[in-house]
Amino acid sequence: MTPQQLYQHILRKRSFLCVGLDSDIRKIPAHLLREEDPVFAFNKAIIDATADLCIAYKPNLAFYESMGVAGWTAFEKSVKYIRTNYPDQFIIADAKRGDIGNTSAMYARTFFEELDIDAVTVAPYMGEDSVTPFLTYPDKWVILLALTSNKGSHDFQLTAAADGERLFEKVLRTSQEWAGDDRLMYVVGATQGEAFEDVRRIAPRHFLLVPGVGAQGGSLEEVCRYGMTDRCGLIVNSSRAILYADNGEHFADAARQAAQEVQQAMSRLL
Amino acid sequence: MTPQQLYQHILRKRSFLCVGLDSDIRKIPAHLLREEDPVFAFNKAIIDATADLCIAYKPNLAFYESMGVAGWTAFEKSVKYIRTNYPDQFIIADAKRGDIGNTSAMYARTFFEELDIDAVTVAPYMGEDSVTPFLTYPDKWVILLALTSNKGSHDFQLTAAADGERLFEKVLRTSQEWAGDDRLMYVVGATQGEAFEDVRRIAPRHFLLVPGVGAQGGSLEEVCRYGMTDRCGLIVNSSRAILYADNGEHFADAARQAAQEVQQAMSRLL
Repeated sequence: MTPQQLYQHILRKRSFLCVGLDSDIRKIPAHLLREEDPVFAFNKAIIDATADLCIAYKPNLAFYESMGVAGWTAFEKSVKYIRTNYPDQFIIADAKRGDIGNTSAMYARTFFEELDIDAVTVAPYMGEDSVTPFLTYPDKWVILLALTSNKGSHDFQLTAAADGERLFEKVLRTSQEWAGDDRLMYVVGATQGEAFEDVRRIAPRHFLLVPGVGAQGGSLEEVCRYGMTDRCGLIVNSSRAILYADNGEHFADAARQAAQEVQQAMSRLL
Repeated sequence: MTPQQLYQHILRKRSFLCVGLDSDIRKIPAHLLREEDPVFAFNKAIIDATADLCIAYKPNLAFYESMGVAGWTAFEKSVKYIRTNYPDQFIIADAKRGDIGNTSAMYARTFFEELDIDAVTVAPYMGEDSVTPFLTYPDKWVILLALTSNKGSHDFQLTAAADGERLFEKVLRTSQEWAGDDRLMYVVGATQGEAFEDVRRIAPRHFLLVPGVGAQGGSLEEVCRYGMTDRCGLIVNSSRAILYADNGEHFADAARQAAQEVQQAMSRLL
């Protein structure tokens, strides 16, 4: 998907919401446990209830891998279900990978070729040759961790070099030598507030994937004030607040309502 | 496994070799493709041929995940095969994970509880709360990326802060506030040469997992000269040079021979 197509999708939906499929078998409604593949059944219901309100889905691999083979099956089925039934959706594998070149190339092949996923989150610690294997696929994206939403983001990401440049700023600047804003996005946590201004100084046009609205306490308004560009430039993720809005028989209706509230707020902010 | 048990294992085997199970279905001997699970058949043969010469196995998750469900099955079967038949082997899931707390906790559960793996490689970029969920299991280990073996290690890991401390040094120092040398190891690439001295200045007693000997060009002698401690303190990994020593019918014999050469060199260096 090109940046233009993504922006058109955002305008069409009046939404820049990404629904994070952090689907945890210990949290999904009990009645689904009777299904043959409970996590897929859960995802399918969530997807059908929210697809007209969001522009992206982001399965977090950790939740699937923690269930081993059954989890990978649910992950693949969910990706294929979205791709088949809602082909305009942007699919992000939240994998936070990053390894030496030949290994990253293996991951790229899995996500982009075999599963036709649009984007993969990648950790920058290992540098250029761990990232570039993901950048060779036309219209596929790397979403590089820059400034994350968690408390530990302060441990290393904010460390300033001798010239005053902080590590996340160096990641933003250096990675732009590897690809343009048609292949590269950045993760910037909603909890980072005014740091969005610092991000925009270095990456004025890139799309940012923004986790941390909702359960983690970030503010949608603040993110838009400091981070929005003239072509939106934001994909804001919400996971738990939508998935687990209700854990009874009507969980999908409750998820839809939660997603709709976010979408309506986004429509006003666009 | 405690550090003492690991050291005893090293003395018993006269080896600190880790065989990296980077098992790529495109590279394994053609005759194995007739097997029901070719990658597991390959791993099983490699493990049986090398178990008396090494102290650890390190399946790299990327290679398994790139095959989807079939890959996860081969990974789990390989781990269980080692655990059942060679219970003293140290098993490392080379996963390079690192995510926000609840997600890291999911990974920790998979690797340590469900699969009874001994250690997981973790990327430090997201800081403390992405690492500590892995540190709550007795006798299980986090192997934190510090100074990796690839070219891209220069991009961020060597960036010096205002006080002259480089990022990998900050990772070494800061992470020691999270756990002791009975829970924490570090990845330091064999290609880093004299930087081992800098690592040992900050982490004098920690075990180091050292990739990059063999195909990547690092020198075993140099690693030992600068990195060995009085209880060895090194786990040196070799993957491709052992796995793909030969790709015909006698691949396992060739792998054994390649492993034996490394083990004999290690025996002299111990």
